[in-house]
Amino acid sequence: MLLMTPGLALFYGGMVRAKSVLNMMMMSFGALALISVLWVLYGYSFAFGDDVGFGLLGDPTEFFGLAGLMEDLTTEEGGLPTMAFVGFQAVFAIITVALISGAIADRAKFGSWMVFAGIWATVVYFPVAHWVFDFTLTDDDGVVTHTGGWIANNLAAIDFAGGTAVHINAGAAGLALALVLGKRRGFGRDAMRPHNLPLVMIGAGLLWFGWFGFNAGSALAANNTAAVAWVNTLVATGAATLAWLLVEKMRDGHSTSLGGASGVVAGLVAITPACSAVSPIGAIIVGALAGALCALAVGLKFKLGYDDSLDVVGVHLVGGLVGTIMVGFVGTAAAPAGVDGLFYGGGVDQLWRQVVGALAVLVFSFVLTLVIGFLIQKTIGFRLTEEDEVTGIDTVVHAESGYDFASLGGGGSTAPLGGQARAEARNTEGSRA
Amino acid sequence: MLLMTPGLALFYGGMVRAKSVLNMMMMSFGALALISVLWVLYGYSFAFGDDVGFGLLGDPTEFFGLAGLMEDLTTEEGGLPTMAFVGFQAVFAIITVALISGAIADRAKFGSWMVFAGIWATVVYFPVAHWVFDFTLTDDDGVVTHTGGWIANNLAAIDFAGGTAVHINAGAAGLALALVLGKRRGFGRDAMRPHNLPLVMIGAGLLWFGWFGFNAGSALAANNTAAVAWVNTLVATGAATLAWLLVEKMRDGHSTSLGGASGVVAGLVAITPACSAVSPIGAIIVGALAGALCALAVGLKFKLGYDDSLDVVGVHLVGGLVGTIMVGFVGTAAAPAGVDGLFYGGGVDQLWRQVVGALAVLVFSFVLTLVIGFLIQKTIGFRLTEEDEVTGIDTVVHAESGYDFASLGGGGSTAPLGGQARAEARNTEGSRA
Amino acid sequence: MLLMTPGLALFYGGMVRAKSVLNMMMMSFGALALISVLWVLYGYSFAFGDDVGFGLLGDPTEFFGLAGLMEDLTTEEGGLPTMAFVGFQAVFAIITVALISGAIADRAKFGSWMVFAGIWATVVYFPVAHWVFDFTLTDDDGVVTHTGGWIANNLAAIDFAGGTAVHINAGAAGLALALVLGKRRGFGRDAMRPHNLPLVMIGAGLLWFGWFGFNAGSALAANNTAAVAWVNTLVATGAATLAWLLVEKMRDGHSTSLGGASGVVAGLVAITPACSAVSPIGAIIVGALAGALCALAVGLKFKLGYDDSLDVVGVHLVGGLVGTIMVGFVGTAAAPAGVDGLFYGGGVDQLWRQVVGALAVLVFSFVLTLVIGFLIQKTIGFRLTEEDEVTGIDTVVHAESGYDFASLGGGGSTAPLGGQARAEARNTEGSRA
Repeated sequence: MLLMTPGLALFYGGMVRAKSVLNMMMMSFGALALISVLWVLYGYSFAFGDDVGFGLLGDPTEFFGLAGLMEDLTTEEGGLPTMAFVGFQAVFAIITVALISGAIADRAKFGSWMVFAGIWATVVYFPVAHWVFDFTLTDDDGVVTHTGGWIANNLAAIDFAGGTAVHINAGAAGLALALVLGKRRGFGRDAMRPHNLPLVMIGAGLLWFGWFGFNAGSALAANNTAAVAWVNTLVATGAATLAWLLVEKMRDGHSTSLGGASGVVAGLVAITPACSAVSPIGAIIVGALAGALCALAVGLKFKLGYDDSLDVVGVHLVGGLVGTIMVGFVGTAAAPAGVDGLFYGGGVDQLWRQVVGALAVLVFSFVLTLVIGFLIQKTIGFRLTEEDEVTGIDTVVHAESGYDFASLGGGGSTAPLGGQARAEARNTEGSRA
Repeated sequence: MLLMTPGLALFYGGMVRAKSVLNMMMMSFGALALISVLWVLYGYSFAFGDDVGFGLLGDPTEFFGLAGLMEDLTTEEGGLPTMAFVGFQAVFAIITVALISGAIADRAKFGSWMVFAGIWATVVYFPVAHWVFDFTLTDDDGVVTHTGGWIANNLAAIDFAGGTAVHINAGAAGLALALVLGKRRGFGRDAMRPHNLPLVMIGAGLLWFGWFGFNAGSALAANNTAAVAWVNTLVATGAATLAWLLVEKMRDGHSTSLGGASGVVAGLVAITPACSAVSPIGAIIVGALAGALCALAVGLKFKLGYDDSLDVVGVHLVGGLVGTIMVGFVGTAAAPAGVDGLFYGGGVDQLWRQVVGALAVLVFSFVLTLVIGFLIQKTIGFRLTEEDEVTGIDTVVHAESGYDFASLGGGGSTAPLGGQARAEARNTEGSRA
Repeated sequence: MLLMTPGLALFYGGMVRAKSVLNMMMMSFGALALISVLWVLYGYSFAFGDDVGFGLLGDPTEFFGLAGLMEDLTTEEGGLPTMAFVGFQAVFAIITVALISGAIADRAKFGSWMVFAGIWATVVYFPVAHWVFDFTLTDDDGVVTHTGGWIANNLAAIDFAGGTAVHINAGAAGLALALVLGKRRGFGRDAMRPHNLPLVMIGAGLLWFGWFGFNAGSALAANNTAAVAWVNTLVATGAATLAWLLVEKMRDGHSTSLGGASGVVAGLVAITPACSAVSPIGAIIVGALAGALCALAVGLKFKLGYDDSLDVVGVHLVGGLVGTIMVGFVGTAAAPAGVDGLFYGGGVDQLWRQVVGALAVLVFSFVLTLVIGFLIQKTIGFRLTEEDEVTGIDTVVHAESGYDFASLGGGGSTAPLGGQARAEARNTEGSRA
């Protein structure tokens, strides 16, 4: 699952224009760096500290700096050392923040992105992780030893590996941030094609691989639940990819590789909350539905006029909603989660819990992200100047350009002489072999 | 091991010309999507259902949709949940189908490939997996509880992780399909050099990594057999790579990176059936032999005139034969499989079993693939028109092109203005920064 | 952890000019192939055979060809089969050799590199691995059953996963070899910018992923020590990346993607020896210090005039020293290694052990590498001719070029018509679609 964030960096990086690839990747790498430090300092406490009231937030001081967690503790969640759980959950926090960056490609100041990432993780992600992932624990006598979050315990919505906390959360934040930053120059008019589709495919492949760790690992043991999650993840992804490619073929006459890669991700997103709750046939249904709906949803941004550049809304928000809500329909008591949905005779009891959980995270994330985004825009500024955007964010912000094939000879350079990094660049006269 | 199919997509994708990279990758991704769904629906039943007679096929209805496998069952094969075995074996089915695509680069209709993939998996792979991987099981009293396939049980040929079922199978199918589709325009005359060797190397690296899961994982437990398989896989790959590079150096005066990457794969292929049956020194012998023979075999296609574009025959068929048959020579009773080959005093008893198993799969796969291929060619058509092939399969079939570095400025665009995918492409006027 | 060497190949490959990418990658792949074979033949014996005297070397005949290790033995180090330990340690040997190649980019004969790799592993790495990683074992009655190396046992320096044996070792060797081979033509004058920064980022991502196996796996079990190592590795990497980006921003006005990728590696290097010995807060300190110091150290080569092309010295030697020595300062008895450093009231007892261990490896590696390098240079020659260096090492040595986008049309070819590998190249007339 550690490969997910690097995989996302490549997936996103290949989808933008060549002049923005480095900035796109750096938003993921920067989030990885920052959130891992915040997680150790106070993020884990916010999310998994003892509840401070109403299931809304963990005690931020309980595990500050992870003090006291180095001993050989075993969590009640399944025999793992607590520190393994800490490390596992860190990856959820990192990937959620990194996902948002796809909505604001090509136009955000890097420093402002980093400030946003830190604030958003603190104010939005850590609390939501507490809501969704922090289970109340009791000892052998039934005495409560740890109080968790409201969605996991009071509402009892099922979200196995982050349909709400990760995907709806990131998708709603992406929508808010796309609105705050506005459209790229030329959006809906100029070609903004992926500059390197093999890079997109590499990213999709690594995401796919890492996601199995994410979903199967959420069982917190190498047991039957993990194995069911594994098979469901595999088959939902396959069904979603086929569905996306079919929608494209019927609508446009072509099935594209970008569609294939996007279908993979849509399927992964949708099965994330559901993979312990449905049968393999149910997983096929969830995947196929997500693939088809997301393939249709990615066109909405042009109709409605928000520049969700790399389809965080179309894939993660829509896919997360599909997966979370479908648990209420095709969940089956035969699966490890043990709850029947509407189609299996369970009535609407689980369905309304799923809908409430999904909407709560959606609204909370969207509203707070709007506020955080506007505050940053009005203070330190968030969006690049139009001139810098035209020049290219890699050159302006990072003083680098993604590629330089000039030494191969051939016709001419394919890369401009943008200033490159590291000390050596400062010893340059620009002469070339 | 999940990284194998994405790794293969990159390995193959980098080896074709730039105008075909996306189609090449999509054949792997498409196989991944389709076969994962078929596996859940009936593939697992065909392969691992109770034998319907003569060890030829599993009962296709036994596990339809994997019904009844969500409970916490433990297979007799080693303490894993059945669902983990299901997921593990799914990857074998997927990669075998994807491997075939290397023989028909640049010239197959994508829809026809997908139809072929589904039929081939059903008619060829699922039965062969039953033959090779489905072991007969008995309970504590010796009563047979499950009857498996003929190669694993009646013939008792050793194939630890798929030398016959995966590599000989895919290689023979690749040869048949290359004959059905015919040569690419310009084959043996024009340069058809790999367009992106770093991409080939990425793919080889991911394949190498995934293969350890494939081989070590076939022990179905983290035990000594897995560890021996691991070390044998490592050292056979090393020996094969060195051998390939030496053959190139002696024959051509240069050791190439394509040769290095191909040597890695040749070694992996050859040790796949043998990694539980030989000592580390035996693994060096198997690897070195495979590296040298495959390096020589990839030239055969020019002499014999079949366009096995990316050397599925030269690497997978030849490497699979080397590894499967060498078990009969250098197998040692000291290794986990516990059988002595000819060189260890075991006589020809195991050798003839290995040869029969290898030939049976080879002939079965070759003949049925010829039939399937011809039927598709004569009905919906399999091969692109010559005009489309010259234009480039990415543009014609997927309406995309792999790369677009134009936004970096420099001399000129390196990518044509092929139509790109997703809705945004339809909002384009083609203006460029 | 298997992904580390392929990851390194990409990380290094992206950092050189386009005309050298394949040679750069082949130095890693070649090391992987050769060292894996040597490891099986005698390397494991040199490193983990019974000590032949003074803790300097293992008995080279004890496990020749790994004879006798195929039985289901369990090492006293933690319940793993011995063969698993053999395979795990093989990866350390391979990556250490591959790391050195970064210091001699663009200018070493490939055959000479391979000869160097074999000699260096034998004379330098295998003994140092014995010093650092081979622990003396006793049976239940306290009788010594196996005698190990001097740094691990007599000196009792802490090096969890290779700060000395891997990084200081490779860094010192890189410095020596850079001196032996001399500077590239145009060093410090011409632009030698990374030609493909997305490739660098892919490599950094795979390295990052593999390193968790490396560090957590060094616990030899999925236990609490592994979990602490995991979290410390995560957070140290994050802190180092942030520190490197901040140094760049303050010094140059820009944070670069090359800096981000380098910061990741610097953090990984520094936490490698320390990850079982410090708290998560300690890991942040180690990482931040390493990120900042390495960011400053990579400029030294221009001031001092040695062409450590890809910063093996600046990142691995400096990072390795920071991590190894910092254990003496911020080590805490609360961590699994159980030793207090200077800042935790442990005085200088551990500190001097760390310093002695680090310096011993540094001096040993530097001196012997100088000798080996000079011997190769004076006999079979090590450095390319200037003419070949200007033409490009890929074309001259491997008869390949990394990229060929010509089939996409656009302005012109971006790749020269260098001779490509495999038989097909010899059937070429150079005509193009």
